[in-house]
Amino acid sequence: MQDIYHRANSVRLAIFDVDGVLTDGVLYYSDSGEETKAFNVRDGHGMKMLQASGVQIAIITSRCSRAVELRARDLGIDLLFQGASDKLATCRQLLQSVKLEPAAAAYIGDDLVDLPVLRHCGLAVTVPGAPPALRRHAHYVTRAKGGQGAARELCELIMHAQGTLGAHAGSPSRDAVASGADLA
Amino acid sequence: MQDIYHRANSVRLAIFDVDGVLTDGVLYYSDSGEETKAFNVRDGHGMKMLQASGVQIAIITSRCSRAVELRARDLGIDLLFQGASDKLATCRQLLQSVKLEPAAAAYIGDDLVDLPVLRHCGLAVTVPGAPPALRRHAHYVTRAKGGQGAARELCELIMHAQGTLGAHAGSPSRDAVASGADLA
Amino acid sequence: MQDIYHRANSVRLAIFDVDGVLTDGVLYYSDSGEETKAFNVRDGHGMKMLQASGVQIAIITSRCSRAVELRARDLGIDLLFQGASDKLATCRQLLQSVKLEPAAAAYIGDDLVDLPVLRHCGLAVTVPGAPPALRRHAHYVTRAKGGQGAARELCELIMHAQGTLGAHAGSPSRDAVASGADLA
Amino acid sequence: MQDIYHRANSVRLAIFDVDGVLTDGVLYYSDSGEETKAFNVRDGHGMKMLQASGVQIAIITSRCSRAVELRARDLGIDLLFQGASDKLATCRQLLQSVKLEPAAAAYIGDDLVDLPVLRHCGLAVTVPGAPPALRRHAHYVTRAKGGQGAARELCELIMHAQGTLGAHAGSPSRDAVASGADLA
Repeated sequence: MQDIYHRANSVRLAIFDVDGVLTDGVLYYSDSGEETKAFNVRDGHGMKMLQASGVQIAIITSRCSRAVELRARDLGIDLLFQGASDKLATCRQLLQSVKLEPAAAAYIGDDLVDLPVLRHCGLAVTVPGAPPALRRHAHYVTRAKGGQGAARELCELIMHAQGTLGAHAGSPSRDAVASGADLA
Repeated sequence: MQDIYHRANSVRLAIFDVDGVLTDGVLYYSDSGEETKAFNVRDGHGMKMLQASGVQIAIITSRCSRAVELRARDLGIDLLFQGASDKLATCRQLLQSVKLEPAAAAYIGDDLVDLPVLRHCGLAVTVPGAPPALRRHAHYVTRAKGGQGAARELCELIMHAQGTLGAHAGSPSRDAVASGADLA
Repeated sequence: MQDIYHRANSVRLAIFDVDGVLTDGVLYYSDSGEETKAFNVRDGHGMKMLQASGVQIAIITSRCSRAVELRARDLGIDLLFQGASDKLATCRQLLQSVKLEPAAAAYIGDDLVDLPVLRHCGLAVTVPGAPPALRRHAHYVTRAKGGQGAARELCELIMHAQGTLGAHAGSPSRDAVASGADLA
Repeated sequence: MQDIYHRANSVRLAIFDVDGVLTDGVLYYSDSGEETKAFNVRDGHGMKMLQASGVQIAIITSRCSRAVELRARDLGIDLLFQGASDKLATCRQLLQSVKLEPAAAAYIGDDLVDLPVLRHCGLAVTVPGAPPALRRHAHYVTRAKGGQGAARELCELIMHAQGTLGAHAGSPSRDAVASGADLA
C-alpha cells in the first residue's frame, strides 16, 4: 500500500470513466428511446469532498448521454469529455490543458478500452469485475464495485494519502481506508 | 441492546434521511433530465405502522426531488424538509416546532453530512455501508441495507421497545427483532 | 414436503400479492410522478405455464398502479384486484365468485397485511425476507426472493405436485423442484 | 473444456436471447405503459469485439420491445428477430438465410422455451439461474448471470477458442477465460 499512497499523494486530477465505474454498468433503455443511468449518492458526495480538498475531477467516456451531463453539472464537474473514441488522446489533451504531468493524474476505468489511458496515468485504478488485463495493470483494485462505492473509495484513498480526509470524517485510521472494507 | 431499547422507548419522533436510507443510494438520471428514486414497500409499511402507533415521522434530506415529496405524501408524512444544507439546524428547528427534546428523537442517516444531527439525537442509527465515523457514533447499525429494510428495522425496533409491535404482527420475540435477522 | 405436495395438489387457484412477491418490493418514483415496478420474465413464464396447466391465477394487492394492470394483461390474468384494503374480504369474495373452497387456493404474500388471507388459504406461501409471523404461518417459504423467481417457484411447485410440469420441461426430479435450488 | 473450445472454434454466428440473457430478466413497467430493459455495457462491448473478430451476431426473442431494437442498433446488430413464437423455426430460417449449418451457430438462452433451439445449435449455452432442463442440455453454463456478464463471457469464450481475443486484451490465459472467474 505504501506505493499506492505515494502515487495518490501526487494526484492533482482524478479522471473517472462512467459506465461500470460511476454506475454498475447497467444501461436502461426504455421503449420510448430514453436512456437512464444509475449513479450513487455517496460516490457523488466523495467527488464533492475531493474537489473541496483541492483535487480537480474530470470525466472521460466513450459513450454519449445527457444523463452524464446532468450528473456532472450536479457535481460541479466542468471537465467532461463524452464520445471519446480515443480515450488516451483525450486524456493527453486534458492533461495539457490543465498543465499537469501524467504522474499527477489518477484514472479509474473498468474495461479494455480503458487500458491505454490507465497505463498512462500515475495512479491506475480499476474495479473488481474488470477484465484480468486491467486488474493486472492497475495499481489498485477497489473493494467496492462500480456504482456501489468504487468512486468514493478512490476519492477517500487520495484524500487519505494527502491528509485531507480528516476534515470531513473525524480521523479514520489509514488501515480502515486502505482495506476499503468500510467503503463497500 | 438494553441501552438501545431504553433509548428507543423514549422516541416520539423518528427522522429519516432519504438517499442511502429510504433508498439504496442509487440516483437514476434519465436523458430527459428526470430523476427517479427506488423506495421499498416494506419500509413504507413499517413507517405507516410506526405512525399508527403514535410516533411522528419526519424526513430531512440535503437534496431536492419531487419523487421524495410524492413518497412522503403516500406515507402521510407532513414533516418533510428537503434542500437542508445544514441538517443539524433543520433538526433543531423541527424539534422546537414539535416541542420535543433531542432525547425524544431518533435519526437514521448514511453519510458524513449526517454526523452532526446523528450525534444530536437520542437514538442514532446508521446503515451497514456507512463510513466508519458514522458507525462509531451510532447507537445501532441496522442489519438491513438502505432501501432494503433499514427503515423498517428502525420502525420495528422502536415499536418493539414501546410494546406496540404486537398489534401488527402477533408477538415476535424481542431477540428476533433485535437481531434484525428477520428484517433483512 | 409431503404435506406441501398434498396441499399443492388440491390447488385450483393461485393468488399472488404484487409488491415483494412479483417484484422485489422496490417502488420506483420519478420526479414526474410516475411509478414503475420491476417484474421478472421467468416468473411471468411460470404463471403462463400454470394457467396452461388448468390452474387459475389471481392477483390481490392493497396498492393501485396501472403498471400492475398492464402486467396482468400481458399474462392473461383477468382476476385482478387492486386497492384491496381488506385482502381477506377480497379473497373470500373471489373464492365465492369462482366457486372454490379455501383449500383449493394458494396464496403468496410478503408482509403482515397478508397474514389473514395467508391463514385462510389451503396452501400458504411466503418469501425469504418476510416478517417472522408470516414465515411461521406459511406452509412453504420460497428459496427465491420476491421478483427473483419466488412466483416461478410456486408455479412449478403446484405443477410438480399435479404432474403437469413435465409437459414443459422434460422431467426434472421431484427433489430438484422441492429444493428450489434450481429456481433461484 | 476441450469439447467446448472445439465447438466454440466452429462458431460463425452467435445467437442471443434477450430477457434473462442480455438482461437480468427484469421487466420494468411504468404506469404510463412504458417498458424498460436493463442492458450491460460490458456485454455490449464484448458483442462488438466478437463482431469485429468476424463472427456474426443475431438476437431472437419471443417478446417485442422497441428497447431491444434500439439496443441492437447501438451494437450494429441487423439480425434481430422479435416476437418469435417458435424460436426453433426462426433459428432455422436464420441459418438458411446466412447459409450456415447448425454446428456453426452458438445459442444462449435462459428458459424452457429456449430448449429446442438450444439443442439445435452447435454450441449451447445457458445462465446460472436457468431451469435444470436447460442446464442439462447446455454445453456450457456461464459463471456470470444474465445481464451481468453472461453475454460477455460467451463472446470471450468464442474469441478465445478462435484466437482472436488477444487483439483486444493482451493475452489472458485460456484458463482464466474458461473459468469465467474474471468475467463475473
